[in-house]
Amino acid sequence: MTLLDRLSAAIGAQHVLTGTDTARYATDWTAVYSAVPLAVVRPANTAEVADVVRIVSEAGVAIVPVGGNTGLCGGTYASDAIMVSLERMNAIREIRPEARVAVVEAGVVLDTLHAEAAAHGLTFPLTFGARGSAMIGGCLSTNAGGSNVLRYGSTRGLCFGLEVVLPSGEVLDLMTALHKDNSGYDLKDLFIGAEGTLGIITAATLKLVPKPSAYATAMVALSSLDDALALLNRLQEATGGAVEAFEYMPGATVEAWCDHFKEMRPPFDRTYDVNILVEVGATAPRDATPAPDGSLPVVDDLETLLGEMLEEGTVLDAVVARSEAQRAEMWNRREHHADVALGKPPFVNADVSVPLDRVQTFLDGMASKLPALDPEAYPLIVCHLGDGNIHYSALISSDDLYDPVLAAVEDQALSLGGSFSAEHGIGKSKLASMRRRKDPVALKVMRQVKAALDPEGLMNPGKVLPEA
Amino acid sequence: MTLLDRLSAAIGAQHVLTGTDTARYATDWTAVYSAVPLAVVRPANTAEVADVVRIVSEAGVAIVPVGGNTGLCGGTYASDAIMVSLERMNAIREIRPEARVAVVEAGVVLDTLHAEAAAHGLTFPLTFGARGSAMIGGCLSTNAGGSNVLRYGSTRGLCFGLEVVLPSGEVLDLMTALHKDNSGYDLKDLFIGAEGTLGIITAATLKLVPKPSAYATAMVALSSLDDALALLNRLQEATGGAVEAFEYMPGATVEAWCDHFKEMRPPFDRTYDVNILVEVGATAPRDATPAPDGSLPVVDDLETLLGEMLEEGTVLDAVVARSEAQRAEMWNRREHHADVALGKPPFVNADVSVPLDRVQTFLDGMASKLPALDPEAYPLIVCHLGDGNIHYSALISSDDLYDPVLAAVEDQALSLGGSFSAEHGIGKSKLASMRRRKDPVALKVMRQVKAALDPEGLMNPGKVLPEA
Repeated sequence: MTLLDRLSAAIGAQHVLTGTDTARYATDWTAVYSAVPLAVVRPANTAEVADVVRIVSEAGVAIVPVGGNTGLCGGTYASDAIMVSLERMNAIREIRPEARVAVVEAGVVLDTLHAEAAAHGLTFPLTFGARGSAMIGGCLSTNAGGSNVLRYGSTRGLCFGLEVVLPSGEVLDLMTALHKDNSGYDLKDLFIGAEGTLGIITAATLKLVPKPSAYATAMVALSSLDDALALLNRLQEATGGAVEAFEYMPGATVEAWCDHFKEMRPPFDRTYDVNILVEVGATAPRDATPAPDGSLPVVDDLETLLGEMLEEGTVLDAVVARSEAQRAEMWNRREHHADVALGKPPFVNADVSVPLDRVQTFLDGMASKLPALDPEAYPLIVCHLGDGNIHYSALISSDDLYDPVLAAVEDQALSLGGSFSAEHGIGKSKLASMRRRKDPVALKVMRQVKAALDPEGLMNPGKVLPEA
Repeated sequence: MTLLDRLSAAIGAQHVLTGTDTARYATDWTAVYSAVPLAVVRPANTAEVADVVRIVSEAGVAIVPVGGNTGLCGGTYASDAIMVSLERMNAIREIRPEARVAVVEAGVVLDTLHAEAAAHGLTFPLTFGARGSAMIGGCLSTNAGGSNVLRYGSTRGLCFGLEVVLPSGEVLDLMTALHKDNSGYDLKDLFIGAEGTLGIITAATLKLVPKPSAYATAMVALSSLDDALALLNRLQEATGGAVEAFEYMPGATVEAWCDHFKEMRPPFDRTYDVNILVEVGATAPRDATPAPDGSLPVVDDLETLLGEMLEEGTVLDAVVARSEAQRAEMWNRREHHADVALGKPPFVNADVSVPLDRVQTFLDGMASKLPALDPEAYPLIVCHLGDGNIHYSALISSDDLYDPVLAAVEDQALSLGGSFSAEHGIGKSKLASMRRRKDPVALKVMRQVKAALDPEGLMNPGKVLPEA
C-alpha cells in the first residue's frame, strides 16, 4: 500500500486531500509561503491523529500540523510533507463555569470559544485580528499574544493543560484543570510555542475569566511615551489592574491609516505624535452599573484621570467612546493595521519586544538609524505598549534594503535587552535571526530537546530551529 | 589534587565546608532527610558556580544545589554529593519600579525582596510561612506556591527570565524582562520546578506588582463549601479580581490549633464546619483611602457582601479584622498550621490539588475512607480553596497505616482529575507516587529531557524522577 492508501484506510479517503483540494492549505495568509503538500489529512479525533503520525513517520515523511493558517512566519509551509489539519477536531468538550474552565479541541476557532464562553458570562481573554479563523491549536503552538496580554498574559498563561500527539505517535495526556500541579517537569510549556516541532497539540483545558460587563475605551494624545507610561501606571492603580489594552500609534501611522482607508475618520482634529488606544474592562457591579443619567462609573473614572492629566499638560487631547459603535471604530482602525502595509511592498515587518521602560529609547534609536539606511523609508509602527511589544514595520524603497533595515531593528531591540520575536514566533521567516541572535547555549539546549523528543526530525522540520 | 583541593583553589578554602561545618546544610527543615555531604561549597557568583559544576562533574561526583533548605520533600538530600549553597549570591542587582521588574540572585531571601520592593510601593507577591529563610533560587526550583497564587500565580507566573548553570558548566542566559518573547522553546519553564535536576538557577528577573495599600481580612463561617465558592466568585466580581487569599479550615483543624497553641483564641464562639480566611488587597485610592470616620472602602465592601450572605443564610458568622494586629492574628493561626502536625507523629502529610469545583467531592470521599482505614485517625486539613490545593494531613495511629492512608488520599485526588503534588514538589518523598501515578508517557518524556540535558545524571540525582 502507498502512504496515501494507508492514510485513507486509517481516516477515510474523503479526508485525504490531494492536488487542487490542498490549495487552501498550501498558501498561508501572508501569501509569502506557498508549497504543494503531498497531501492534507483531516483526522477526526486524537486516536486518528496518533494513527496518522505513526503511519507518516514510519514512511519517513515529514508532518506539518495546520490550524487556521493565520500565522505570519511561514510555520505551516509544507513542502514534501503531509499536512495534518486539525479543523475537524472542533468540539468544545466542556465548559465548567464555576471552575472557570473550558475543555476544547485544537480545531476550535477562537471566536467560537468567545461566543460559547459569553453565554456563561465568561470569556477566553485572548484576542487579535485573526480571531475569526485562528484555531486554538495554532494559538497554543505559537503562544499567541495580541492586545490583552497586559491584563491576561499570552496563550501560555491561559492554558491549564494539554493533550499532545508525540512524534512517536504516543498520546501525552496533560489535560488537567489545576491551578497548582508540581508533579515533575513542566512539559506543557515546552509544547506551547514550539510551533508543532515537538508534537501535535490536539486538545487543551483553558482558563476562562469573567467577561467585563462594561468597557471604558478612549483615544488619548499625550506629549511623550513617558507620560503614556505614567497614564498606564496611574490607571492600573486606580482600577486595580483592570487595563485590558494599551496600544500606541505614532502620528505617522495614523496618517497612513487615514490615507489607506479613505472612509476612516482620524481620531483627532490634528496629528499628534503619541496616540494611545486605551481600554479598561469592568466586572464589578459598582464599576459597570449605569447611573440614572446613563453614565458608567468605569468611564467616569477614566475621564476624571484624563481630565487631571489634561490640566497637568501631559495629556494633550482625548476622545472617550460614548457607544459600542464608537468603541468599535477605535478598534477597527487598530485591527486593520496589517492591511495597510501588506498592500505596499516592499516592507520590513519586525515583531520585537523590549522592557516597558525602554520603548522610547528603542524608537529614538530607530528614528536616527532608519533614515540613514533608507532616506525614503516610511515607518509604520504600532506597539502593544502595555507589554513592550513593538510591531516595527517600514515601507522601504528597495528589496535590497530589507536585510539591513531588519538587522537594524533587531540590533536596536537586542541592545536594550529585547527579543527579535515577541509574539509571532519563528516559523521559517525568522530562522536567520534565530541563528544569528539567540544565545548559542540556548540554541544548543533547544536542539538537545528537539533531538530527544523527535530523533528522526520529522515533526514540522525546518521551522523554529536553524540547522546547526 | 583532590576534588576538595580543586574546589578550594576555585572559590577559596574558607568556602569549602566539611565535617561539622556542613551540619546546618545536612538536615532539612522536616528533619526527615539527613545525610552528610562530601562538602558544602559556597560560590560567590555565577562564574564560580560554573567552575564548581565543571570541577565536580569532571570528578563524576553528584551535585546538589541548596538555598534556604525549607523544602518539605527532601529535595536537598545530599549523600555522596557536593552541596552547592547559593547563600552568598544574595544581591538584589536592580529594581526598576517603572517596569515593575526586580533582578535578583538566587540566594536572596524572599522576605528581603519583599522589604526592598516595598520601598518602591511594590511587592513580589509570593508568600508563605517560610518566607524569612526561603531563597529565590529554591522558590523557583520548586515553583513555590503559597497563599496568594489565587491572585498572582505560582512562582512560575512571576518570573520573566532566568540564568542557569547547566550540568555541562555552561551558563544559559535567559535573563530577559520581557512580557512577550517567542524566540524558540520555552526553556525557562523547564528549569522552574525541576528542583535542580537540570541545572542550577543562579539569578532571575522577577515581576513586581503594586503593593496593596489596604487589606480587608476576615474569618468567615459558612454553611457549605459550595457557599464558600459562591462567596469567592461574588467577591472576585465585586473587587475586579482583587481577592489575594481564600483559605479553608475545617472545624477539626481550628480545634487542633487551639488545643496546640494554648494562647491562641478561637475565631468564633462556637465551632463551625467551614471556616474561611479571606483577604482582599486594594491598590486603588478610592478603595484604600480611609473615610473621615476611619473606615476603609475595601473593608466596607467586604462587610456589605458578608452582610448580604448572612441574611441569605449562607454565611453563618464573620469577624472582620479592624486593625493590623487583628489581621496578623488571623494569619498567625494559619501560618503555624504545620507546627501542629509536626509535633505529633506519625502523620500523613499530603499536598494534593483538584479542580476548584471538586474540593467538596474530594473531602466527602475522604470523610468515609479515612475512618475505614484508621478509626482513630484525626484529619488536619487546610486548603488554599481559591486554587484547589488541599493540604490533607492526618494524625494516624500507626506507622503501618502511612502508605494505605497516603494512597487513599492520592487516589481520591486523581479520581477527580487532581494531582498528587500541588505545590511542594517531588524531591525524594514523592518518588513512589511519581512512579505509580504519573502518566507513563509523561514520565518517559521527562526522562528523555533529563538524559538530553544531564547525560551523566550528576545533577541532584535521585530526585523528581524515579528510576526507570
